[in-house]
Amino acid sequence: MSTVQEGAAASISRDQGPGYGDLDAMMPDEPRRAAWVARRRDDPVRTQMHYARRGTVTEEMWVVAQREGLDPAFVRDEVARGRMIVPANVGHVNLVPMGIGINARCKINANIGNSALTSDVEGELEKLRRVVKYKSDTVMDLSTGGGIDEIRHAVIAHSPVPVGTVPIYQAIQKVKKPEDLTADGLVEMIRHQAEQGVDYMTVHCGILLKHLGLVDRRITGIVSRGGSLMAMWMLAHRRENPLYERYDDILEICRRYDVSLSLGDSLRPGCLHDASDRAQFAELDVLGELTQRAWEKDVQVMVEGPGHVPMDQIPMNIERQIEVCREAPFYVLGPLVTDVAPGYDHITSAIGAAIAGQHGAAMLCYVTPKEHLGLPKADDVHQGIIAYRVAAHAADVARARPGARDWDDKISRARYTFDWNEQFAQSMDPEVARAMHDEDLPHEAFKTAEFCSMCGPKFCSMKISQAVDEYNAKIKSGEAEETQTVG
Amino acid sequence: MSTVQEGAAASISRDQGPGYGDLDAMMPDEPRRAAWVARRRDDPVRTQMHYARRGTVTEEMWVVAQREGLDPAFVRDEVARGRMIVPANVGHVNLVPMGIGINARCKINANIGNSALTSDVEGELEKLRRVVKYKSDTVMDLSTGGGIDEIRHAVIAHSPVPVGTVPIYQAIQKVKKPEDLTADGLVEMIRHQAEQGVDYMTVHCGILLKHLGLVDRRITGIVSRGGSLMAMWMLAHRRENPLYERYDDILEICRRYDVSLSLGDSLRPGCLHDASDRAQFAELDVLGELTQRAWEKDVQVMVEGPGHVPMDQIPMNIERQIEVCREAPFYVLGPLVTDVAPGYDHITSAIGAAIAGQHGAAMLCYVTPKEHLGLPKADDVHQGIIAYRVAAHAADVARARPGARDWDDKISRARYTFDWNEQFAQSMDPEVARAMHDEDLPHEAFKTAEFCSMCGPKFCSMKISQAVDEYNAKIKSGEAEETQTVG
Repeated sequence: MSTVQEGAAASISRDQGPGYGDLDAMMPDEPRRAAWVARRRDDPVRTQMHYARRGTVTEEMWVVAQREGLDPAFVRDEVARGRMIVPANVGHVNLVPMGIGINARCKINANIGNSALTSDVEGELEKLRRVVKYKSDTVMDLSTGGGIDEIRHAVIAHSPVPVGTVPIYQAIQKVKKPEDLTADGLVEMIRHQAEQGVDYMTVHCGILLKHLGLVDRRITGIVSRGGSLMAMWMLAHRRENPLYERYDDILEICRRYDVSLSLGDSLRPGCLHDASDRAQFAELDVLGELTQRAWEKDVQVMVEGPGHVPMDQIPMNIERQIEVCREAPFYVLGPLVTDVAPGYDHITSAIGAAIAGQHGAAMLCYVTPKEHLGLPKADDVHQGIIAYRVAAHAADVARARPGARDWDDKISRARYTFDWNEQFAQSMDPEVARAMHDEDLPHEAFKTAEFCSMCGPKFCSMKISQAVDEYNAKIKSGEAEETQTVG
Repeated sequence: MSTVQEGAAASISRDQGPGYGDLDAMMPDEPRRAAWVARRRDDPVRTQMHYARRGTVTEEMWVVAQREGLDPAFVRDEVARGRMIVPANVGHVNLVPMGIGINARCKINANIGNSALTSDVEGELEKLRRVVKYKSDTVMDLSTGGGIDEIRHAVIAHSPVPVGTVPIYQAIQKVKKPEDLTADGLVEMIRHQAEQGVDYMTVHCGILLKHLGLVDRRITGIVSRGGSLMAMWMLAHRRENPLYERYDDILEICRRYDVSLSLGDSLRPGCLHDASDRAQFAELDVLGELTQRAWEKDVQVMVEGPGHVPMDQIPMNIERQIEVCREAPFYVLGPLVTDVAPGYDHITSAIGAAIAGQHGAAMLCYVTPKEHLGLPKADDVHQGIIAYRVAAHAADVARARPGARDWDDKISRARYTFDWNEQFAQSMDPEVARAMHDEDLPHEAFKTAEFCSMCGPKFCSMKISQAVDEYNAKIKSGEAEETQTVG
């Protein structure tokens, strides 16, 4: 297999932030992914990690390199050592490949999916359209209600971004009680979803019988849904976690379809009180072990993290995961930095997510305003995605990723020169920015006005500041006398 | 003067977070503040700092101590050394006193005020009602349009929280061009507003002629409105900043009315590119000098800070201010951690504000979703306040302030026991939390339901987790056999 031609994706848009503009433009013209994976049809192992370790830059890695502004060989080396994953099921042929890792732009995930009480296929596709429109990097379909297969088929068929799932959510639909789940049933569900084209799966392999006694000092116990189901199963059967015991079988499926594993943190804290406790870190040690075992089978893996964490504990949490899981990408949920603001948890968690990203988390799972209260609707998806893009971009700037701040500088220049239309165009959410400006000053004439409704036309600071600039320019050119120099 | 009786404020509410419940209940029954200040009528110096340095615990300090859960003598000592201020104009008799300082709960300020283009007295009073309802700790009236005196009278008369202003915003209304401002006119405006009862004032005394050449490498120049006006004046007259030259006169006014100074940062960065530059820090050095001079006159002072700052530079900014200004309270605007999300700057800045608070900022000036786009309306005020209360509380938790996390633990217990009504009651914004829950499950019966619409009634993680708790309890009591212990 050879790499694609370097010139093919020269037209990649870098507007509105690097690496996520017009998704279609990010792909080489021809051939598309169906042809790439067709050529690999007979390979017994088809994971990106497998190819990377053989020294191959796949087409997927090449696209990732273009989007990230990285050398394709560097992307290959990151994938080979497990520090970056490219979630790309061989069956998801309309995917625009992307990478998740500490040396790539910080990514975000948006969850969609129905529940037993609400939503349907069209409702989920509407959410998916928002996911793509507002530029989440991946999407997880967490449906727990009816018609799960139908929804997943539709989501994968329409999604240019990687699709993740939590297979136990579908497995549990087929039984009456958690203890009715079987090890075979769980493994078969993972195979079923792998065949459907799911790019990454959360599996709760890390929670073990010996951990269950560690949650007794918690306020909110086990808040991971999959984790609580496995706990219930273990309690009922007095046996070890079947997902842990059948981990090799799961890895075999992942090798074949290139499903990336997202090792679930069943014992993540559900409130500040429970953060960074022995239960959480006991499970993390198991996730570190499972990471190694995945890598031995050329399976791509990332590790999930909390949850609810006070700000001052976040850097330690990231550093510990990086050490225990030997730099496997860390995929955190928020974390929320306070428990007291239901209705605003996209904000409580964006604060934690930004700090997590700054300290090395590779992907941030969004939280919507509906967290703890109800099932997110399309507008909640919108709010959650923007809050998380803010967090991820702020983290990229703070990590001084090459080119990250260029976007900020571009919009700031537009702001200073009163180029309102350019300011809107460079905004993370152009429609909302324009609509808010229109609220007081709707006419097109105001889009070049040297003021806004905040201070009004008289004495705008930036207008006056431009006079200072002109004065400084005159001093430099010798036209004016400098009154005093800085001491 | 004696301190008030200790029992008088025993009924202070600590619900929904410490120190800001029912404002009226926070005051001793009788006498109220009109009587306190009447007794001090003939004192030539009437600042809290003056009394503190004489060893007196004023009634204001006593109320602050109750609200903060601090020893009154400690509050007095903090005020005496300038590390805490109690902004309390002797003429603002309906004030419920509060303190701002690194050893108090992190505070927030909400800006209201009209502009030349929009809003009136009733519109501003509606915003003030939101400010009090959603619990901002102070309010600034930044009116720049017509009827400024009328609006300020109404705001002070109705405000139980300290009212701040920027006197130059009113002074500039009386002239045609910035250069028409006079030193006498500026000082008289400060005296006028002091007489009206303004508790703290932003004065742009720190920007000097020698600084003007330092902004030439910036993208957005001078974004402080007051700062840009002073810069224009200095350029036009080729003379030093009159607010700097008349600083002693300003201090005399503050001594008499106990106006706290908020030393404006005229050269704060207006975009990430301009953060932490030589202009910003040259002015900060002057603010440090002005802080000392205020303290020599027993005038209370805090120092304003940026603005727009990348996350990784925020701790350094706080530490530098604390050192240069010898622990005078730092009052920061945001900071925004990215420039690219107009329409969402309550979020971009809440991230920075939380980090600033964690590292020692004493008060956080809110930013609304309308920042950079237009004048905030009542709903924008609401959104801004909640985002900043989240930031301030998260900072208090991260600083491990005594009792701060109790609130989080309380709502988390309600969450785990499915006590929805208690969860709403303990929410920062109970109405919004309840309304979001009602969206899918409006009936009262669901307020005790052991599930929500997020996952639906089948297999709620917290419900299952409670089964784990029961199992653990059985093991402890010897009823069940422990299957395995943690290694």
